Amino acid sequence: MTISSFHPPQRTLMGPGPSDVSPRVLEALARPTIGHLDPAFVGMMDEMKALLQYAFKTENALTLPVSAPGSAGMETCFVNLVEPGDTVIVCQNGVFGGRMKENVVRIGATPVMVEDDWGTVVDPDKLESALKANPDAKVVAFVHAETSTGAQSDAETLVKLAHDHDCLSVVDAVTSLGGSPLKVDEWGIDAIYSGTQKCLSAPPGLSPVSFSERAAEVIRTRKSPVQSWFLDLNLVMGYWGAGAKRAYHHTAPINNLYGLFESLVMLQEEGLENAWTRHELNHQALRAGLEAMGLSFVVKEGDRLPQLNAVRIPDGIDDATVRSRLLNEYQLEIGAGLGTLAGKVWRIGLMGYASSPRNVVYCLTALEAVLADMDAPVNKGVAVSAATQRLQKG
Amino acid sequence: MTISSFHPPQRTLMGPGPSDVSPRVLEALARPTIGHLDPAFVGMMDEMKALLQYAFKTENALTLPVSAPGSAGMETCFVNLVEPGDTVIVCQNGVFGGRMKENVVRIGATPVMVEDDWGTVVDPDKLESALKANPDAKVVAFVHAETSTGAQSDAETLVKLAHDHDCLSVVDAVTSLGGSPLKVDEWGIDAIYSGTQKCLSAPPGLSPVSFSERAAEVIRTRKSPVQSWFLDLNLVMGYWGAGAKRAYHHTAPINNLYGLFESLVMLQEEGLENAWTRHELNHQALRAGLEAMGLSFVVKEGDRLPQLNAVRIPDGIDDATVRSRLLNEYQLEIGAGLGTLAGKVWRIGLMGYASSPRNVVYCLTALEAVLADMDAPVNKGVAVSAATQRLQKG
Repeated sequence: MTISSFHPPQRTLMGPGPSDVSPRVLEALARPTIGHLDPAFVGMMDEMKALLQYAFKTENALTLPVSAPGSAGMETCFVNLVEPGDTVIVCQNGVFGGRMKENVVRIGATPVMVEDDWGTVVDPDKLESALKANPDAKVVAFVHAETSTGAQSDAETLVKLAHDHDCLSVVDAVTSLGGSPLKVDEWGIDAIYSGTQKCLSAPPGLSPVSFSERAAEVIRTRKSPVQSWFLDLNLVMGYWGAGAKRAYHHTAPINNLYGLFESLVMLQEEGLENAWTRHELNHQALRAGLEAMGLSFVVKEGDRLPQLNAVRIPDGIDDATVRSRLLNEYQLEIGAGLGTLAGKVWRIGLMGYASSPRNVVYCLTALEAVLADMDAPVNKGVAVSAATQRLQKG
Repeated sequence: MTISSFHPPQRTLMGPGPSDVSPRVLEALARPTIGHLDPAFVGMMDEMKALLQYAFKTENALTLPVSAPGSAGMETCFVNLVEPGDTVIVCQNGVFGGRMKENVVRIGATPVMVEDDWGTVVDPDKLESALKANPDAKVVAFVHAETSTGAQSDAETLVKLAHDHDCLSVVDAVTSLGGSPLKVDEWGIDAIYSGTQKCLSAPPGLSPVSFSERAAEVIRTRKSPVQSWFLDLNLVMGYWGAGAKRAYHHTAPINNLYGLFESLVMLQEEGLENAWTRHELNHQALRAGLEAMGLSFVVKEGDRLPQLNAVRIPDGIDDATVRSRLLNEYQLEIGAGLGTLAGKVWRIGLMGYASSPRNVVYCLTALEAVLADMDAPVNKGVAVSAATQRLQKG
């Protein structure tokens, strides 16, 4: 056996994440590794927390990047806040609500499901009914930005309902952080997790989380130990907590943290609200182009995520063939449907560094060329001009 | 608030890990991010498994890098193999046996502790007594290379004892993999986990694991679900398993995997046995120098790890002052003692890329200079020549 170095192709990443990573962030990854207790690293950790607080719009002290991907961020929220026997109301309108349910079950807690059709948002009325029917519920969990469908639920309203019924709120913001309005303190979110490979455009592998003081108190006063040693925030805070003294818990993923740090510095340079505006404009341009081609969105207007555009695949067109041709002929990755939407939709991401006019134009050009070559029932020669007109309007 | 880019200092990393990362590996980290389901990435995953099998000396099909640091690799082994109510014999001779116990307790299983003094190896006779006294035990767990003390236990003998009593073996090889002899198949190890930031000299953040067919069967036929969704190997194998079809489970830490891959390619180029020999020679040289200075090892000869050298701090010398001066004046990191050894020992790593004559000489030079300046009771002017003589002998 002789295996040689791996040199990945240069893609354009317009799927559901990872998104294109800026050369600045890639360069940061390659900076020299230092120790996880090095004073220089500890200083960086303090600044990292400040940058994450900025991105989340929070002053929560318990704000840090979990040393593993978004799925572990989700698990961090559930295993720390929920104990065996608790009741958790889980709103599901796509893949990731189902994953939340799995987390609750594996803790030995009871999930109460509030189901909405995939592609729609979480219905506050259904949540309210569930809260009234389950007065002993401790937590309400929902996905702010459903990556599997592109639907954006009204987090502020859902959190308020949870609080009205004395529940904590757990919010999945994997795809919203940095890409569309998200205001942790103003909305009163108690626990939130995200990922680095979506609108922050850092490589995957870390999960920013934040907990309100109320949630932190629940964690500190648990009756039973957190079932995961690795994710136990009572221990993790010995390393990421305030103060100069940092106790070793696990070895932090040093270089991945360099990458996240650089991407957060870039977000701060641009300005969070400016980043939201950029995502919205590029979404509108992509939308104009896709609709000019005759493609239709899965999610109704007003409920759409600007950073994740799910569109229906035209009749008679094979999903895998199109994605494979885009990848091989154009080095362009777009996403497949998940779960019940598999084979029926494409998911086109415009996330973080990848949310650019260049990518909008390139994606429309490539998609139109491939669909035209496959004799798909789409309008030809109109997508790019529709998109650029929309971009000019600003 | 304005926070600017983080540029870490260039250190020489001779602590307990992370170790110095080769420029080749750092460069690999910065290669373009691609999708976790990209065919090019999936091809890399197959080669990654082959490289890990080479490093572990195993043909286990269930061999992969867990998407989180070594602590999560430990938790992966325990939560997948152990169910509530099981009895697990945990051998403890340092910090990490204690962490194993925590894992067992949090599953709702019963740990039976076999205790040995810190700095000594696990005593096979004590393990045998525990096995006889606990005929219902399901798993024997121990640390092959105790990073907290530098003691190397006889894994082959301990695994054989476990098998003689119909137990599975779980082995912590965080510090041994790539640095000292480790033969998973020949020794019959059932489950093993390691880290990337020790003798593989990749950045921290991933945990290579491997499971025998017998262990894999135990995981497939569990009575209860694995308590962690993120670490459930029955799910993870849908992504890392054999075959062209890869099901999304979580988003893999793409760029960190590029780094691990490159470090494993380098290990294969050098040859695993050659790497073991190199670690041993540099250890002997460092030892000659340290002993010439008058410093003594915590672990007795024959039980020492070549890659982790724990030596006693001379009387009257303040631990933190020395380490701080080494860091600030020489950009050199060595490790502090952990647990009961805190303040009493230094841990000097010679791991992976950092196991070099250059680092041996540099460390001895810097340590001698600082200790001499602090009027420590050590012999002066002899360490480097003792080390170089030992290196010349080969």
